[in-house]
Amino acid sequence: MEKFEVTILGCGCALPTIRHFGASQVVNIHEKLFMVDCAEATQLQFRRNRLKFNHLGHIFITHLHGDHFFGVIGIISTLSLLGRTSDLHVWGPTGIEEALRPQIDIFCPGLSYSVEIHPLDTKTHQMVFEDRSVEVYTIPLRHRVPCCGYLFKEKPLLPHILRDMINAYDIPVSQINNIKLGMDYTCPDGTVIPFTRLTTPADPPRSFAYCSDTVYKPDITQYLQGVDLLYHEATFSDEEEQAAVRFYHSTASQAATIARDSHARQLCIGHFSSRYEDENFLLQQAQAIFPNTVLARENLVIRL
Amino acid sequence: MEKFEVTILGCGCALPTIRHFGASQVVNIHEKLFMVDCAEATQLQFRRNRLKFNHLGHIFITHLHGDHFFGVIGIISTLSLLGRTSDLHVWGPTGIEEALRPQIDIFCPGLSYSVEIHPLDTKTHQMVFEDRSVEVYTIPLRHRVPCCGYLFKEKPLLPHILRDMINAYDIPVSQINNIKLGMDYTCPDGTVIPFTRLTTPADPPRSFAYCSDTVYKPDITQYLQGVDLLYHEATFSDEEEQAAVRFYHSTASQAATIARDSHARQLCIGHFSSRYEDENFLLQQAQAIFPNTVLARENLVIRL
Repeated sequence: MEKFEVTILGCGCALPTIRHFGASQVVNIHEKLFMVDCAEATQLQFRRNRLKFNHLGHIFITHLHGDHFFGVIGIISTLSLLGRTSDLHVWGPTGIEEALRPQIDIFCPGLSYSVEIHPLDTKTHQMVFEDRSVEVYTIPLRHRVPCCGYLFKEKPLLPHILRDMINAYDIPVSQINNIKLGMDYTCPDGTVIPFTRLTTPADPPRSFAYCSDTVYKPDITQYLQGVDLLYHEATFSDEEEQAAVRFYHSTASQAATIARDSHARQLCIGHFSSRYEDENFLLQQAQAIFPNTVLARENLVIRL
Repeated sequence: MEKFEVTILGCGCALPTIRHFGASQVVNIHEKLFMVDCAEATQLQFRRNRLKFNHLGHIFITHLHGDHFFGVIGIISTLSLLGRTSDLHVWGPTGIEEALRPQIDIFCPGLSYSVEIHPLDTKTHQMVFEDRSVEVYTIPLRHRVPCCGYLFKEKPLLPHILRDMINAYDIPVSQINNIKLGMDYTCPDGTVIPFTRLTTPADPPRSFAYCSDTVYKPDITQYLQGVDLLYHEATFSDEEEQAAVRFYHSTASQAATIARDSHARQLCIGHFSSRYEDENFLLQQAQAIFPNTVLARENLVIRL
């Protein structure tokens, strides 16, 4: 099965702590890496997780707060020192070009590759990127500044070939892709072998959604139905719901409610306030509503 | 004895590694903190070393390369979140205002305090700051972009009071400062006690110089005579001297030669190229010329 996994590089909040790095994760979809958010020190965490810079093609920024963005320029600079030649795409709210381009001009003269900056409308749910493996959609969120989450949807996969059957019928390799695409195979003697006898059904496509930072916003569940993994911020405990509202963040129970109402398979909560020394009680609050919840932690890898 | 100590927060080079953070150190002079260089993730290292943000008044930047500068905006942002009210001073080569101010305007609206940016001429040796404890001088260096080191010179200290003598002569507390400043004490019966009998000589003032990044530049030794601690970059081993010249960096032996010719008391080498898994052979090369050399490492504290 081709890879679809999420590595948490940092799950802290705006204030640095000894325990957490700032927000960033890397989504590996079929060995292509998509970064979502990029706090200061993300490149260090990226290296520590033995991820490959040359597999990183896209950085998606949710909003222009430093704890989600200050690491971008360091990565751009490092990639140039490493002699990268392929484009790097940086996506984020309108204003990202003005925030990033002057820094590139000052600190990265003679950049060895091109940085393509894509300002996005954070208020609509739309597909903003696709390649042959994945589609990426924005999820409108509500925070103190324009902010959107991102939904990564794997494209439908091809069925699995039954090697034994291929060998039994002595089917040439050149036909295998056609069979995967649903064509029956006609033997030299004219016998037709339906492709369903030569394959097992494709794995269902997988999906990952990242929703941070946001106040509790139940209407986003319409975009998240059946998502395999939902990362939703839970900056505060339920006891701090008023603070959550005031700072446009969510509580553990609110994150779990979004997961439950989205019929998600799994929930990961993160973006923890620096006031908590131990987030396990946030986990308990979330699990009371949505049992299949895990706490984000640095270097956690979740395979879908 | 009042504190004068240097904490190494990061001693790596431009490329991030698993082993090192980027360049930054904090000089504690009588409980006031002066930061020199500020790579990405410096604020994390600052916290890990249990340093106090409210004792940090000045950040001195040697040159506008990202691996010495990208951490400044994160610290400025964090200080505002913490509700700082006192000014923060940021010093660095001409151009630092243009590199930093727009980032502050975009990412720190409603900053709770004032950031005073001081562009410096890196080509001259001059005193750029003083308070009652310290004088800070620039040291002209030569790198691919304008660059200066910094010399921190403690101001002459006052002599130590001999408590036993004070008690023996029943001298009032109000006179102690005068005695420290060199005034003799006249007893009620008219006897004059010379201040030298009431004190022991002051500790000699201490000094710390930071020279990075730079090609080997022997003329700087005129500014460094007798320095207590010299931090000099040793990006490369002696075998890579040609690379050192090409990239405007120094070798281990060159750093040691500067220390020897400055009659420094101690040398700390750092800014290690990411190509080295183990810097001990750089240490050996330096110690062959200047025995009292140590390797920089993260979280190393050197007390003067």
